[in-house]
Amino acid sequence: MDSSASPLSHPFDNAIRLTGSNGHYQGQTTAPYANMVGPFGGVLAGVMLKAVLQHPQCQGEPVALTVNFLAPVADGDFTVDAKAVRTNRSTQHWYVELSQQGQVALTATAVFATRRETWSAPQTPYPGAPRSESVPAMPKVPGLPGFFANYDLRLVRGGIAPMPQAEARLPHCSDTLLWARDNPPRPLDFPALAALSDIFFPRLFVRRQGPALIGTVSMNIIFHADANTLARQGEQYLLGEARAHRFYNGYFDQSAELWSSDGELLVTTNQVVYYKE
Amino acid sequence: MDSSASPLSHPFDNAIRLTGSNGHYQGQTTAPYANMVGPFGGVLAGVMLKAVLQHPQCQGEPVALTVNFLAPVADGDFTVDAKAVRTNRSTQHWYVELSQQGQVALTATAVFATRRETWSAPQTPYPGAPRSESVPAMPKVPGLPGFFANYDLRLVRGGIAPMPQAEARLPHCSDTLLWARDNPPRPLDFPALAALSDIFFPRLFVRRQGPALIGTVSMNIIFHADANTLARQGEQYLLGEARAHRFYNGYFDQSAELWSSDGELLVTTNQVVYYKE
Repeated sequence: MDSSASPLSHPFDNAIRLTGSNGHYQGQTTAPYANMVGPFGGVLAGVMLKAVLQHPQCQGEPVALTVNFLAPVADGDFTVDAKAVRTNRSTQHWYVELSQQGQVALTATAVFATRRETWSAPQTPYPGAPRSESVPAMPKVPGLPGFFANYDLRLVRGGIAPMPQAEARLPHCSDTLLWARDNPPRPLDFPALAALSDIFFPRLFVRRQGPALIGTVSMNIIFHADANTLARQGEQYLLGEARAHRFYNGYFDQSAELWSSDGELLVTTNQVVYYKE
Repeated sequence: MDSSASPLSHPFDNAIRLTGSNGHYQGQTTAPYANMVGPFGGVLAGVMLKAVLQHPQCQGEPVALTVNFLAPVADGDFTVDAKAVRTNRSTQHWYVELSQQGQVALTATAVFATRRETWSAPQTPYPGAPRSESVPAMPKVPGLPGFFANYDLRLVRGGIAPMPQAEARLPHCSDTLLWARDNPPRPLDFPALAALSDIFFPRLFVRRQGPALIGTVSMNIIFHADANTLARQGEQYLLGEARAHRFYNGYFDQSAELWSSDGELLVTTNQVVYYKE
Protein backbone atom coordinates (compact mmCIF):
# COMPACT_ATOMS: atom_id res chain seq x y z
CA MET A 1 0.00 0.00 0.00
CA ASP A 2 1.10 3.54 -0.69
CA SER A 3 4.00 2.34 -2.88
CA SER A 4 3.63 5.08 -5.50
CA ALA A 5 3.48 7.90 -2.95
CA SER A 6 6.05 10.62 -3.45
CA PRO A 7 7.46 12.13 -0.28
CA LEU A 8 7.23 15.52 -2.02
CA SER A 9 3.52 15.22 -2.73
CA HIS A 10 0.76 16.30 -0.38
CA PRO A 11 -0.73 13.21 1.31
CA PHE A 12 -4.06 13.98 -0.35
CA ASP A 13 -2.47 13.85 -3.82
CA ASN A 14 -0.94 10.49 -2.95
CA ALA A 15 -4.35 9.24 -1.78
CA ILE A 16 -6.19 10.18 -4.99
CA ARG A 17 -3.39 9.31 -7.44
CA LEU A 18 -4.55 7.18 -10.36
CA THR A 19 -2.42 5.56 -13.05
CA GLY A 20 -3.69 4.11 -16.31
CA SER A 21 -5.38 5.70 -19.29
CA ASN A 22 -8.63 6.28 -21.19
CA GLY A 23 -10.94 5.81 -18.25
CA HIS A 24 -9.35 2.64 -16.81
CA TYR A 25 -7.30 3.50 -13.77
CA GLN A 26 -5.51 1.88 -10.85
CA GLY A 27 -5.10 3.39 -7.41
CA GLN A 28 -4.40 2.32 -3.85
CA THR A 29 -5.50 3.25 -0.38
CA THR A 30 -2.94 5.16 1.71
CA ALA A 31 -2.31 4.89 5.44
CA PRO A 32 -2.78 8.61 6.28
CA TYR A 33 -6.45 8.56 5.20
CA ALA A 34 -7.44 5.42 7.11
CA ASN A 35 -10.90 5.49 8.70
CA MET A 36 -12.30 2.93 11.20
CA VAL A 37 -12.84 0.49 8.30
CA GLY A 38 -11.03 1.26 4.99
CA PRO A 39 -10.29 4.82 3.87
CA PHE A 40 -12.14 8.04 4.71
CA GLY A 41 -15.23 8.24 2.47
CA GLY A 42 -14.38 11.81 1.50
CA VAL A 43 -11.07 10.77 -0.05
CA LEU A 44 -12.91 8.06 -2.03
CA ALA A 45 -15.29 10.74 -3.32
CA GLY A 46 -12.16 12.64 -4.36
CA VAL A 47 -10.87 9.55 -6.19
CA MET A 48 -14.15 9.14 -8.12
CA LEU A 49 -14.03 12.78 -9.22
CA LYS A 50 -10.30 12.54 -10.07
CA ALA A 51 -11.05 9.66 -12.46
CA VAL A 52 -13.32 11.97 -14.46
CA LEU A 53 -10.99 14.97 -14.26
CA GLN A 54 -8.03 13.07 -15.68
CA HIS A 55 -10.06 11.37 -18.43
CA PRO A 56 -8.92 12.66 -21.84
CA GLN A 57 -12.55 13.33 -22.88
CA CYS A 58 -13.37 15.42 -19.78
CA GLN A 59 -15.02 18.76 -20.58
CA GLY A 60 -15.99 21.54 -18.19
CA GLU A 61 -16.09 21.46 -14.40
CA PRO A 62 -18.20 19.48 -11.92
CA VAL A 63 -21.63 20.80 -10.98
CA ALA A 64 -23.02 17.61 -9.36
CA LEU A 65 -21.55 14.40 -7.97
CA THR A 66 -23.28 11.43 -6.34
CA VAL A 67 -21.12 8.74 -4.74
CA ASN A 68 -22.68 5.47 -3.53
CA PHE A 69 -20.84 3.30 -1.02
CA LEU A 70 -21.73 -0.31 -1.87
CA ALA A 71 -19.23 -2.13 0.33
CA PRO A 72 -16.24 -1.38 2.57
CA VAL A 73 -13.01 -0.66 0.65
CA ALA A 74 -10.18 -2.89 1.91
CA ASP A 75 -6.69 -1.48 2.36
CA GLY A 76 -4.75 -2.02 -0.87
CA ASP A 77 -5.25 -1.75 -4.63
CA PHE A 78 -8.39 -0.78 -6.47
CA THR A 79 -9.43 -0.06 -10.06
CA VAL A 80 -11.58 2.83 -11.24
CA ASP A 81 -13.52 2.85 -14.52
CA ALA A 82 -14.96 6.14 -15.75
CA LYS A 83 -17.27 6.42 -18.76
CA ALA A 84 -18.71 9.53 -20.44
CA VAL A 85 -22.31 8.37 -20.90
CA ARG A 86 -23.25 11.48 -22.88
CA THR A 87 -21.44 14.61 -24.03
CA ASN A 88 -23.55 17.62 -24.98
CA ARG A 89 -22.49 21.09 -26.06
CA SER A 90 -22.16 22.47 -22.53
CA THR A 91 -22.75 19.45 -20.25
CA GLN A 92 -21.21 16.02 -19.85
CA HIS A 93 -22.56 13.06 -17.85
CA TRP A 94 -20.32 10.41 -16.28
CA TYR A 95 -20.68 7.00 -14.65
CA VAL A 96 -17.81 5.75 -12.51
CA GLU A 97 -17.19 2.43 -10.71
CA LEU A 98 -14.49 1.61 -8.16
CA SER A 99 -13.78 -2.11 -7.81
CA GLN A 100 -11.65 -4.47 -5.75
CA GLN A 101 -11.15 -8.12 -6.76
CA GLY A 102 -13.68 -7.65 -9.54
CA GLN A 103 -16.45 -6.58 -7.13
CA VAL A 104 -17.88 -3.06 -7.35
CA ALA A 105 -17.39 -1.16 -4.06
CA LEU A 106 -18.43 2.36 -5.14
CA THR A 107 -20.48 3.84 -7.96
CA ALA A 108 -20.75 7.48 -8.89
CA THR A 109 -22.50 9.73 -11.37
CA ALA A 110 -21.09 13.16 -12.16
CA VAL A 111 -22.40 16.09 -14.16
CA PHE A 112 -19.79 18.39 -15.65
CA ALA A 113 -20.63 21.69 -17.30
CA THR A 114 -19.09 24.72 -18.91
CA ARG A 115 -20.39 27.78 -17.10
CA ARG A 116 -21.01 31.11 -18.84
CA GLU A 117 -21.07 34.46 -17.13
CA THR A 118 -24.68 35.47 -16.52
CA TRP A 119 -26.99 37.00 -13.90
CA SER A 120 -25.94 35.47 -10.57
CA ALA A 121 -26.95 35.99 -6.96
CA PRO A 122 -26.38 34.50 -3.54
CA GLN A 123 -29.53 33.32 -1.76
CA THR A 124 -28.85 31.60 1.57
CA PRO A 125 -27.06 33.99 3.93
CA TYR A 126 -23.49 33.25 5.05
CA PRO A 127 -23.77 31.89 8.60
CA GLY A 128 -20.76 33.82 9.91
CA ALA A 129 -18.42 32.65 12.65
CA PRO A 130 -15.58 33.93 14.83
CA ARG A 131 -12.44 34.33 12.69
CA SER A 132 -10.60 31.04 12.17
CA GLU A 133 -7.45 32.43 13.85
CA SER A 134 -9.42 33.04 17.04
CA VAL A 135 -10.79 29.48 17.25
CA PRO A 136 -8.44 26.97 18.91
CA ALA A 137 -7.27 23.99 16.89
CA MET A 138 -9.01 20.74 17.81
CA PRO A 139 -6.73 18.74 20.12
CA LYS A 140 -6.05 15.07 19.45
CA VAL A 141 -9.18 13.26 20.60
CA PRO A 142 -8.73 9.58 21.59
CA GLY A 143 -10.69 7.22 19.35
CA LEU A 144 -10.85 9.53 16.33
CA PRO A 145 -9.87 7.76 13.08
CA GLY A 146 -6.37 8.49 11.74
CA PHE A 147 -7.48 10.55 8.73
CA PHE A 148 -8.46 13.44 11.00
CA ALA A 149 -4.71 14.22 11.32
CA ASN A 150 -4.90 15.37 7.66
CA TYR A 151 -7.45 18.05 8.47
CA ASP A 152 -7.04 21.21 10.49
CA LEU A 153 -10.45 21.63 12.14
CA ARG A 154 -11.51 24.60 14.27
CA LEU A 155 -14.76 23.77 15.93
CA VAL A 156 -17.12 26.67 16.61
CA ARG A 157 -20.02 24.56 17.88
CA GLY A 158 -21.44 21.06 17.74
CA GLY A 159 -18.59 18.70 18.64
CA ILE A 160 -18.64 15.37 20.41
CA ALA A 161 -17.43 15.04 23.99
CA PRO A 162 -14.54 15.25 24.87
CA MET A 163 -13.96 17.68 21.97
CA PRO A 164 -13.97 21.35 22.78
CA GLN A 165 -17.29 23.05 22.00
CA ALA A 166 -19.11 19.75 22.50
CA GLU A 167 -21.43 21.47 24.93
CA ALA A 168 -21.86 24.69 22.95
CA ARG A 169 -25.08 23.50 21.38
CA LEU A 170 -28.76 23.31 22.17
CA PRO A 171 -30.06 20.09 23.74
CA HIS A 172 -31.07 17.45 21.16
CA CYS A 173 -29.40 19.49 18.42
CA SER A 174 -27.26 17.89 15.70
CA ASP A 175 -25.77 21.07 14.17
CA THR A 176 -22.04 21.65 13.71
CA LEU A 177 -20.23 24.83 12.62
CA LEU A 178 -16.49 24.57 11.97
CA TRP A 179 -13.52 25.90 10.03
CA ALA A 180 -11.66 23.25 8.03
CA ARG A 181 -8.72 22.93 5.68
CA ASP A 182 -6.20 20.29 4.63
CA ASN A 183 -3.30 19.69 7.00
CA PRO A 184 -0.70 20.57 5.84
CA PRO A 185 -2.45 23.32 3.86
CA ARG A 186 -3.01 22.58 0.16
CA PRO A 187 -4.52 24.77 -2.58
CA LEU A 188 -8.21 23.92 -2.93
CA ASP A 189 -9.35 21.97 -6.00
CA PHE A 190 -12.45 19.94 -6.82
CA PRO A 191 -11.27 16.58 -5.40
CA ALA A 192 -10.26 18.25 -2.12
CA LEU A 193 -13.59 20.07 -2.00
CA ALA A 194 -15.42 16.75 -2.50
CA ALA A 195 -13.43 15.24 0.37
CA LEU A 196 -14.08 18.22 2.65
CA SER A 197 -17.81 17.80 1.97
CA ASP A 198 -17.56 14.65 4.10
CA ILE A 199 -15.48 16.12 6.95
CA PHE A 200 -18.33 16.53 9.46
CA PHE A 201 -18.59 13.98 12.28
CA PRO A 202 -21.66 11.76 11.93
CA ARG A 203 -24.74 13.77 12.96
CA LEU A 204 -25.89 10.90 15.19
CA PHE A 205 -22.72 11.28 17.32
CA VAL A 206 -23.44 14.98 17.80
CA ARG A 207 -27.12 14.47 18.51
CA ARG A 208 -26.54 11.70 21.06
CA GLN A 209 -23.05 12.74 22.21
CA GLY A 210 -21.70 9.26 21.74
CA PRO A 211 -20.51 6.82 19.09
CA ALA A 212 -22.47 4.15 17.22
CA LEU A 213 -21.87 1.84 14.29
CA ILE A 214 -22.46 4.01 11.19
CA GLY A 215 -21.59 4.11 7.48
CA THR A 216 -22.46 6.52 4.68
CA VAL A 217 -24.39 4.74 1.91
CA SER A 218 -24.84 7.64 -0.52
CA MET A 219 -23.51 11.18 -0.78
CA ASN A 220 -24.55 13.97 -3.13
CA ILE A 221 -22.59 17.17 -3.78
CA ILE A 222 -23.71 20.24 -5.72
CA PHE A 223 -20.80 22.51 -6.67
CA HIS A 224 -21.64 26.22 -6.68
CA ALA A 225 -18.15 27.41 -7.61
CA ASP A 226 -15.79 27.25 -10.56
CA ALA A 227 -12.03 26.68 -10.67
CA ASN A 228 -11.34 30.43 -10.46
CA THR A 229 -13.28 30.63 -7.20
CA LEU A 230 -11.30 27.70 -5.80
CA ALA A 231 -8.02 29.33 -6.89
CA ARG A 232 -9.00 32.50 -4.98
CA GLN A 233 -9.69 30.38 -1.89
CA GLY A 234 -6.24 28.75 -2.10
CA GLU A 235 -5.14 27.33 1.25
CA GLN A 236 -7.50 29.31 3.46
CA TYR A 237 -10.03 27.76 5.85
CA LEU A 238 -13.51 26.84 4.62
CA LEU A 239 -16.49 27.42 6.89
CA GLY A 240 -18.74 24.38 7.13
CA GLU A 241 -22.19 24.00 8.64
CA ALA A 242 -24.00 20.67 8.95
CA ARG A 243 -27.29 19.37 10.35
CA ALA A 244 -29.57 16.33 10.20
CA HIS A 245 -33.25 16.36 9.28
CA ARG A 246 -34.33 12.97 10.63
CA PHE A 247 -33.03 9.76 12.24
CA TYR A 248 -35.38 6.96 11.24
CA ASN A 249 -35.08 3.19 11.70
CA GLY A 250 -31.45 2.77 10.69
CA TYR A 251 -30.83 5.72 8.36
CA PHE A 252 -30.25 9.42 8.98
CA ASP A 253 -29.32 12.27 6.67
CA GLN A 254 -26.67 14.96 6.85
CA SER A 255 -27.16 18.25 5.03
CA ALA A 256 -24.25 20.70 4.88
CA GLU A 257 -22.79 23.76 3.20
CA LEU A 258 -19.16 24.76 2.67
CA TRP A 259 -18.30 28.47 2.35
CA SER A 260 -15.12 30.19 1.21
CA SER A 261 -13.18 32.26 3.71
CA ASP A 262 -14.81 35.39 2.29
CA GLY A 263 -18.37 34.10 2.49
CA GLU A 264 -18.97 32.64 -0.97
CA LEU A 265 -20.99 29.39 -1.12
CA LEU A 266 -18.87 26.60 -2.64
CA VAL A 267 -20.87 23.43 -1.97
CA THR A 268 -24.22 22.14 -0.75
CA THR A 269 -24.06 18.45 0.13
CA ASN A 270 -26.40 15.76 1.42
CA GLN A 271 -25.74 12.22 2.50
CA VAL A 272 -27.67 9.31 3.95
CA VAL A 273 -25.99 7.24 6.63
CA TYR A 274 -26.74 3.77 8.01
CA TYR A 275 -26.70 3.44 11.80
CA LYS A 276 -27.02 0.60 14.26
CA GLU A 277 -27.29 0.81 18.03
CA MET B 1 -48.19 7.43 -27.44
CA ASP B 2 -50.15 6.36 -24.39
CA SER B 3 -51.46 3.25 -26.19
CA SER B 4 -51.24 0.97 -23.14
CA ALA B 5 -53.04 3.42 -20.87
CA SER B 6 -56.09 2.01 -19.17
CA PRO B 7 -58.99 4.42 -18.70
CA LEU B 8 -59.44 2.89 -15.25
CA SER B 9 -55.89 3.64 -14.12
CA HIS B 10 -54.77 6.85 -12.50
CA PRO B 11 -52.94 9.00 -15.09
CA PHE B 12 -49.76 8.67 -12.98
CA ASP B 13 -49.88 4.87 -13.19
CA ASN B 14 -50.25 5.13 -16.96
CA ALA B 15 -47.25 7.48 -17.11
CA ILE B 16 -44.92 5.18 -15.16
CA ARG B 17 -46.16 1.87 -16.61
CA LEU B 18 -43.32 -0.38 -17.80
CA THR B 19 -43.61 -3.66 -19.68
CA GLY B 20 -40.85 -6.20 -20.18
CA SER B 21 -38.95 -8.34 -17.69
CA ASN B 22 -35.71 -8.89 -15.79
CA GLY B 23 -34.57 -5.30 -15.81
CA HIS B 24 -35.26 -4.56 -19.49
CA TYR B 25 -38.39 -2.49 -19.81
CA GLN B 26 -40.35 -0.45 -22.32
CA GLY B 27 -42.46 2.59 -21.53
CA GLN B 28 -43.91 5.63 -23.24
CA THR B 29 -44.52 9.26 -22.45
CA THR B 30 -48.15 10.24 -21.84
CA ALA B 31 -49.90 13.45 -22.80
CA PRO B 32 -51.19 14.39 -19.32
CA TYR B 33 -47.62 14.74 -17.92
CA ALA B 34 -46.26 16.92 -20.77
CA ASN B 35 -43.88 19.68 -19.71
CA MET B 36 -42.57 22.53 -21.91
CA VAL B 37 -40.18 20.05 -23.60
CA GLY B 38 -40.86 16.31 -23.09
CA PRO B 39 -42.46 14.96 -19.91
CA PHE B 40 -42.36 16.42 -16.38
CA GLY B 41 -38.99 15.48 -14.82
CA GLY B 42 -40.71 14.25 -11.67
CA VAL B 43 -42.63 11.59 -13.57
CA LEU B 44 -39.36 10.45 -15.20
CA ALA B 45 -37.85 10.13 -11.70
CA GLY B 46 -40.90 7.98 -10.88
CA VAL B 47 -40.22 5.83 -13.96
CA MET B 48 -36.56 5.27 -12.95
CA LEU B 49 -37.65 4.18 -9.47
CA LYS B 50 -40.47 2.01 -10.88
CA ALA B 51 -37.91 0.08 -12.98
CA VAL B 52 -36.13 -0.95 -9.77
CA LEU B 53 -39.32 -1.64 -7.81
CA GLN B 54 -40.68 -4.07 -10.41
CA HIS B 55 -37.32 -5.85 -10.93
CA PRO B 56 -37.60 -9.44 -9.66
CA GLN B 57 -34.37 -9.04 -7.65
CA CYS B 58 -35.52 -5.88 -5.84
CA GLN B 59 -35.07 -6.03 -2.05
CA GLY B 60 -36.11 -3.47 0.53
CA GLU B 61 -37.31 0.08 0.00
CA PRO B 62 -35.63 3.18 -1.44
CA VAL B 63 -33.48 5.34 0.85
CA ALA B 64 -31.65 7.36 -1.84
CA LEU B 65 -32.22 8.12 -5.52
CA THR B 66 -30.18 10.29 -7.89
CA VAL B 67 -31.60 10.99 -11.35
CA ASN B 68 -29.47 12.71 -14.00
CA PHE B 69 -31.11 14.37 -17.00
CA LEU B 70 -28.71 13.94 -19.92
CA ALA B 71 -30.95 15.07 -22.77
CA PRO B 72 -34.57 16.02 -23.43
CA VAL B 73 -36.95 13.04 -23.62
CA ALA B 74 -39.01 13.17 -26.82
CA ASP B 75 -42.71 12.26 -26.79
CA GLY B 76 -43.03 8.55 -27.53
CA ASP B 77 -41.40 5.25 -26.62
CA PHE B 78 -38.40 4.71 -24.37
CA THR B 79 -36.53 1.76 -22.86
CA VAL B 80 -35.35 1.45 -19.28
CA ASP B 81 -32.54 -0.87 -18.16
CA ALA B 82 -32.11 -1.49 -14.43
CA LYS B 83 -29.17 -3.42 -12.97
CA ALA B 84 -28.53 -4.48 -9.37
CA VAL B 85 -24.83 -3.57 -9.13
CA ARG B 86 -24.49 -5.06 -5.66
CA THR B 87 -26.82 -6.81 -3.22
CA ASN B 88 -25.81 -6.92 0.44
CA ARG B 89 -27.62 -8.35 3.42
CA SER B 90 -29.64 -5.20 4.13
CA THR B 91 -28.79 -2.85 1.23
CA GLN B 92 -28.98 -3.04 -2.55
CA HIS B 93 -27.42 -0.66 -5.09
CA TRP B 94 -28.90 -0.03 -8.54
CA TYR B 95 -27.88 1.64 -11.79
CA VAL B 96 -30.64 2.58 -14.25
CA GLU B 97 -30.56 4.04 -17.76
CA LEU B 98 -33.47 5.39 -19.81
CA SER B 99 -32.80 5.48 -23.57
CA GLN B 100 -34.47 6.61 -26.76
CA GLN B 101 -33.21 5.52 -30.19
CA GLY B 102 -30.22 3.88 -28.49
CA GLN B 103 -29.08 7.13 -26.87
CA VAL B 104 -29.08 7.44 -23.08
CA ALA B 105 -31.36 10.28 -21.94
CA LEU B 106 -31.40 9.65 -18.15
CA THR B 107 -29.21 7.79 -15.70
CA ALA B 108 -30.02 7.01 -12.08
CA THR B 109 -28.49 5.35 -9.06
CA ALA B 110 -30.70 4.08 -6.28
CA VAL B 111 -29.96 2.69 -2.83
CA PHE B 112 -32.55 0.32 -1.40
CA ALA B 113 -32.48 -0.92 2.18
CA THR B 114 -34.38 -3.00 4.67
CA ARG B 115 -35.00 -0.85 7.72
CA ARG B 116 -35.10 -2.24 11.23
CA GLU B 117 -36.90 -0.68 14.16
CA THR B 118 -34.37 1.24 16.28
CA TRP B 119 -33.88 4.52 18.13
CA SER B 120 -35.38 7.22 15.92
CA ALA B 121 -35.95 10.95 16.26
CA PRO B 122 -37.06 13.91 14.24
CA GLN B 123 -34.53 16.77 13.99
CA THR B 124 -35.64 19.61 11.71
CA PRO B 125 -38.90 21.10 12.99
CA TYR B 126 -42.08 20.82 10.91
CA PRO B 127 -42.56 24.22 9.27
CA GLY B 128 -46.31 24.30 9.86
CA ALA B 129 -48.84 25.98 7.60
CA PRO B 130 -52.52 26.94 7.51
CA ARG B 131 -54.65 23.79 7.06
CA SER B 132 -54.82 22.63 3.43
CA GLU B 133 -58.61 23.01 3.43
CA SER B 134 -58.26 26.70 4.25
CA VAL B 135 -55.84 27.45 1.39
CA PRO B 136 -57.51 28.13 -1.98
CA ALA B 137 -56.70 25.83 -4.90
CA MET B 138 -54.33 27.35 -7.42
CA PRO B 139 -56.34 28.65 -10.37
CA LYS B 140 -55.31 27.81 -13.94
CA VAL B 141 -52.34 30.03 -14.69
CA PRO B 142 -51.71 30.83 -18.38
CA GLY B 143 -48.37 29.48 -19.58
CA LEU B 144 -48.05 26.71 -16.97
CA PRO B 145 -47.12 23.35 -18.54
CA GLY B 146 -49.92 20.81 -18.89
CA PHE B 147 -48.68 18.41 -16.21
CA PHE B 148 -49.70 20.86 -13.47
CA ALA B 149 -53.32 19.77 -14.08
CA ASN B 150 -52.33 16.42 -12.48
CA TYR B 151 -51.43 18.10 -9.21
CA ASP B 152 -53.65 19.81 -6.69
CA LEU B 153 -51.45 22.61 -5.33
CA ARG B 154 -52.37 24.96 -2.50
CA LEU B 155 -49.83 27.72 -2.37
CA VAL B 156 -49.12 29.21 1.06
CA ARG B 157 -46.29 31.48 -0.09
CA GLY B 158 -43.69 31.90 -2.82
CA GLY B 159 -45.57 31.69 -6.11
CA ILE B 160 -44.92 33.37 -9.42
CA ALA B 161 -47.11 36.23 -10.62
CA PRO B 162 -49.97 35.98 -11.56
CA MET B 163 -50.35 33.04 -9.12
CA PRO B 164 -51.98 33.78 -5.80
CA GLN B 165 -49.50 34.30 -2.98
CA ALA B 166 -46.86 35.45 -5.48
CA GLU B 167 -46.37 38.56 -3.39
CA ALA B 168 -46.51 36.88 0.01
CA ARG B 169 -42.75 36.62 0.24
CA LEU B 170 -39.77 38.72 1.22
CA PRO B 171 -38.01 40.69 -1.54
CA HIS B 172 -35.25 38.68 -3.26
CA CYS B 173 -36.49 35.50 -1.58
CA SER B 174 -36.82 32.19 -3.45
CA ASP B 175 -38.74 30.19 -0.82
CA THR B 176 -42.00 28.38 -1.49
CA LEU B 177 -44.37 26.67 0.96
CA LEU B 178 -47.26 24.68 -0.49
CA TRP B 179 -49.64 21.78 -0.03
CA ALA B 180 -49.56 19.24 -2.86
CA ARG B 181 -51.16 15.96 -3.87
CA ASP B 182 -51.99 14.07 -7.04
CA ASN B 183 -55.09 15.18 -8.93
CA PRO B 184 -57.26 13.14 -8.86
CA PRO B 185 -56.08 11.93 -5.43
CA ARG B 186 -54.05 8.71 -5.44
CA PRO B 187 -52.62 6.71 -2.51
CA LEU B 188 -49.01 7.77 -1.97
CA ASP B 189 -46.23 5.35 -2.99
CA PHE B 190 -42.50 5.77 -3.68
CA PRO B 191 -42.76 6.67 -7.40
CA ALA B 192 -45.40 9.31 -6.65
CA LEU B 193 -43.25 10.66 -3.81
CA ALA B 194 -40.27 10.90 -6.18
CA ALA B 195 -42.40 12.84 -8.66
CA LEU B 196 -43.76 15.18 -5.99
CA SER B 197 -40.14 15.93 -4.99
CA ASP B 198 -39.93 17.83 -8.30
CA ILE B 199 -43.27 19.71 -8.01
CA PHE B 200 -41.83 23.09 -6.99
CA PHE B 201 -41.63 25.82 -9.65
CA PRO B 202 -38.04 26.64 -10.58
CA ARG B 203 -36.50 28.74 -7.80
CA LEU B 204 -35.23 31.26 -10.37
CA PHE B 205 -38.82 32.05 -11.39
CA VAL B 206 -39.75 32.75 -7.76
CA ARG B 207 -36.63 34.78 -7.06
CA ARG B 208 -37.01 36.95 -10.18
CA GLN B 209 -40.81 36.71 -10.57
CA GLY B 210 -40.49 35.79 -14.20
CA PRO B 211 -39.69 32.90 -16.53
CA ALA B 212 -36.36 31.91 -18.07
CA LEU B 213 -34.99 28.96 -20.03
CA ILE B 214 -34.22 26.30 -17.41
CA GLY B 215 -33.71 22.53 -17.11
CA THR B 216 -32.90 20.24 -14.20
CA VAL B 217 -29.61 18.40 -14.83
CA SER B 218 -29.45 16.29 -11.64
CA MET B 219 -31.82 15.53 -8.78
CA ASN B 220 -31.15 13.73 -5.51
CA ILE B 221 -33.81 12.38 -3.14
CA ILE B 222 -33.32 10.98 0.35
CA PHE B 223 -36.33 9.00 1.58
CA HIS B 224 -36.99 9.30 5.31
CA ALA B 225 -40.11 7.12 5.34
CA ASP B 226 -41.06 3.51 4.74
CA ALA B 227 -44.04 2.00 2.95
CA ASN B 228 -46.09 1.92 6.17
CA THR B 229 -45.64 5.67 6.58
CA LEU B 230 -46.74 6.23 2.98
CA ALA B 231 -49.78 4.00 3.50
CA ARG B 232 -50.78 6.11 6.53
CA GLN B 233 -50.47 9.26 4.39
CA GLY B 234 -52.76 7.79 1.72
CA GLU B 235 -54.35 10.48 -0.42
CA GLN B 236 -53.82 13.41 1.94
CA TYR B 237 -51.91 16.58 1.05
CA LEU B 238 -48.14 16.74 1.56
CA LEU B 239 -46.58 19.96 2.83
CA GLY B 240 -43.57 21.01 0.76
CA GLU B 241 -41.00 23.72 1.41
CA ALA B 242 -38.30 24.70 -1.10
CA ARG B 243 -35.48 27.23 -1.38
CA ALA B 244 -32.35 27.96 -3.37
CA HIS B 245 -28.85 28.46 -1.94
CA ARG B 246 -27.14 30.15 -4.90
CA PHE B 247 -27.62 31.17 -8.53
CA TYR B 248 -24.22 31.14 -10.20
CA ASN B 249 -23.26 31.47 -13.86
CA GLY B 250 -25.84 29.18 -15.38
CA TYR B 251 -26.67 26.78 -12.52
CA PHE B 252 -28.76 27.12 -9.39
CA ASP B 253 -29.82 24.61 -6.75
CA GLN B 254 -33.16 23.77 -5.20
CA SER B 255 -33.33 22.25 -1.73
CA ALA B 256 -36.69 21.01 -0.44
CA GLU B 257 -38.51 18.89 2.12
CA LEU B 258 -41.82 17.04 1.85
CA TRP B 259 -43.81 16.39 5.04
CA SER B 260 -46.80 14.16 5.68
CA SER B 261 -50.11 15.74 6.60
CA ASP B 262 -49.38 15.00 10.26
CA GLY B 263 -45.89 16.52 10.27
CA GLU B 264 -43.64 13.54 9.59
CA LEU B 265 -40.66 14.18 7.30
CA LEU B 266 -40.91 12.01 4.16
CA VAL B 267 -38.24 13.38 1.83
CA THR B 268 -35.29 15.77 1.63
CA THR B 269 -34.38 16.55 -1.96
CA ASN B 270 -31.80 18.64 -3.83
CA GLN B 271 -31.45 19.40 -7.49
CA VAL B 272 -29.19 21.48 -9.71
CA VAL B 273 -30.80 23.35 -12.57
CA TYR B 274 -29.36 24.93 -15.72
CA TYR B 275 -30.59 28.43 -16.54
CA LYS B 276 -30.10 30.86 -19.40
CA GLU B 277 -31.26 34.44 -19.59
